[in-house]
Amino acid sequence: MWGMIATWRMAVEGITKGAEMLTNSGNAGDAIEAAIRQVEDFPYYKSVGYGGLPNEEMEVELDAAYMDGDTLDIGAVAAIRDFANPVSIARRLSREKVNSMLVAEGAEKFAHKEGFERKNMLTDRARAHYKKRVKEMTAQAAGKELKPYSGHDTVGMACLDRMGKMTAATSTSGLFMKKKGRVGDSPISGSGFYADSRKGAASATGLGEDLMKGCISYEIVRLMGEGMHPQDACETAVYRLDRELRERRGEAGDISLIAMNPKGEWGVATNIEGFSFAVVTEELEPTVYLVTRERDGRCTYEKASDEWMENYMKTRMAPMVE
Amino acid sequence: MWGMIATWRMAVEGITKGAEMLTNSGNAGDAIEAAIRQVEDFPYYKSVGYGGLPNEEMEVELDAAYMDGDTLDIGAVAAIRDFANPVSIARRLSREKVNSMLVAEGAEKFAHKEGFERKNMLTDRARAHYKKRVKEMTAQAAGKELKPYSGHDTVGMACLDRMGKMTAATSTSGLFMKKKGRVGDSPISGSGFYADSRKGAASATGLGEDLMKGCISYEIVRLMGEGMHPQDACETAVYRLDRELRERRGEAGDISLIAMNPKGEWGVATNIEGFSFAVVTEELEPTVYLVTRERDGRCTYEKASDEWMENYMKTRMAPMVE
Repeated sequence: MWGMIATWRMAVEGITKGAEMLTNSGNAGDAIEAAIRQVEDFPYYKSVGYGGLPNEEMEVELDAAYMDGDTLDIGAVAAIRDFANPVSIARRLSREKVNSMLVAEGAEKFAHKEGFERKNMLTDRARAHYKKRVKEMTAQAAGKELKPYSGHDTVGMACLDRMGKMTAATSTSGLFMKKKGRVGDSPISGSGFYADSRKGAASATGLGEDLMKGCISYEIVRLMGEGMHPQDACETAVYRLDRELRERRGEAGDISLIAMNPKGEWGVATNIEGFSFAVVTEELEPTVYLVTRERDGRCTYEKASDEWMENYMKTRMAPMVE
Repeated sequence: MWGMIATWRMAVEGITKGAEMLTNSGNAGDAIEAAIRQVEDFPYYKSVGYGGLPNEEMEVELDAAYMDGDTLDIGAVAAIRDFANPVSIARRLSREKVNSMLVAEGAEKFAHKEGFERKNMLTDRARAHYKKRVKEMTAQAAGKELKPYSGHDTVGMACLDRMGKMTAATSTSGLFMKKKGRVGDSPISGSGFYADSRKGAASATGLGEDLMKGCISYEIVRLMGEGMHPQDACETAVYRLDRELRERRGEAGDISLIAMNPKGEWGVATNIEGFSFAVVTEELEPTVYLVTRERDGRCTYEKASDEWMENYMKTRMAPMVE
């Protein structure tokens, strides 16, 4: 068995590419890296890689991570600017015994020395979004500090190859209008991602600051390790964290998770409306599903309609009105 | 009941100060911040705050975190330079709903705007250590890349106040000769620290890259939440992670943990020789213990002798021979 599952509709082209590799006995490291790169390279996704929306200072700062479920090797970068493929830098770092998580200028120096591709990651479209937002805010309240935009659509993936190796990886430009140097859950082990080939792999998307409060990717993998089905593990962990946050803080940020176990079984859970995900296995062609929350944290999903799929891409690629 | 437990001998003056606050009904946030600041301010500790050893580029880059076990608020900074008290910046950030983990220049900008004390954190003594090390390495193999020094004595603390609030906090200069921008476990939720007033609090010291592979502070708090005594929780989690790493990688980095539960019971575990810790509770005056590893991950400890305590400080404060 082999398979991949990923957060959001935007990942489906990536996992389609990954699946081609996995079906030809490619390994879970190469497949997940290729899949995430595909998402990073596509300019119309506003929250990952090229085309990602910038921070408060109009800089695109990127976070990414990679974890090998056989060795537990982890590599991560945070607040890195102007490199085309943060996930590849993260994977390269995962082979280092020490210094495997690097941030900001230090991460950029490493990537430069290792020959990774430089690219100005701020697109005209992202610049237009930024300017529009500044104008909106100025109009709304002159002098008021910009609040981060609520969008935070990290691409997070879990992958299983024919040899039974599992991996997890993430890539994101983080919150639109975040403060310079802000790091969310995506490069944080156990929060944004976790992989253990003996138990499973999981990855998160949502409000990083809240996801970190529950180490939720680690928790889901742990529950799968106790024999829980990925669907139950995701629902249990998301429901618990959402409830804890509401009890203690009166509110909970967005929490959405995907997971896969070593049998290629998979699951998802969310505490929001409108979460989509993409999945492929040896037995299932690449498919996008839309999730519906039911009572008590249960989640159901149905295949996205052709109409929904067409509309999605139309919205993403619509001309920007300045 | 109230109490504090902390990694390493160096924390004992800090927890003594924290204990004065706790006995006078001070809260666990103020006490842990004051305790960590004490360690940060002492110039002869080479791995925390002022006097901490620099990175490969002779810059002192500091990591710190703070977690509130009532609200699960987390604040963290990483790779921040030239501020006197990183733990206070982390605590300030924990009150932000978003942007609560900041790194490098972004963290410095925030700290500057918030009025935190600037300080050149590179002491003459640390500079001498750096130069000595460069000379050693040059002699050893001309042109060879500098390897990080194995020392990584993070101060990590868990704290309980009379009201039942628990906190965790960390502060470190990280690995001596680390790469610029390297982040260890100390500012990473669930790895370097975790606190939940209903379950307990824990903190780690050791090789950050390996500690992250097990989300070990989260795991210990989770085990305490299932009713396990802090000593059993620490031993169980450290033993399991050490074994997993050895099985999969042939070796395990240094792993040492301290923990306390809401009753003020505490525990420690380590996979190394020579781990010391400091603890104080309503019923126990501030005491330094030395840990001995027994079979199957069991750990025992005994009070440090007066001779050991004297020798410790003498070694730390001995003149540097250039």
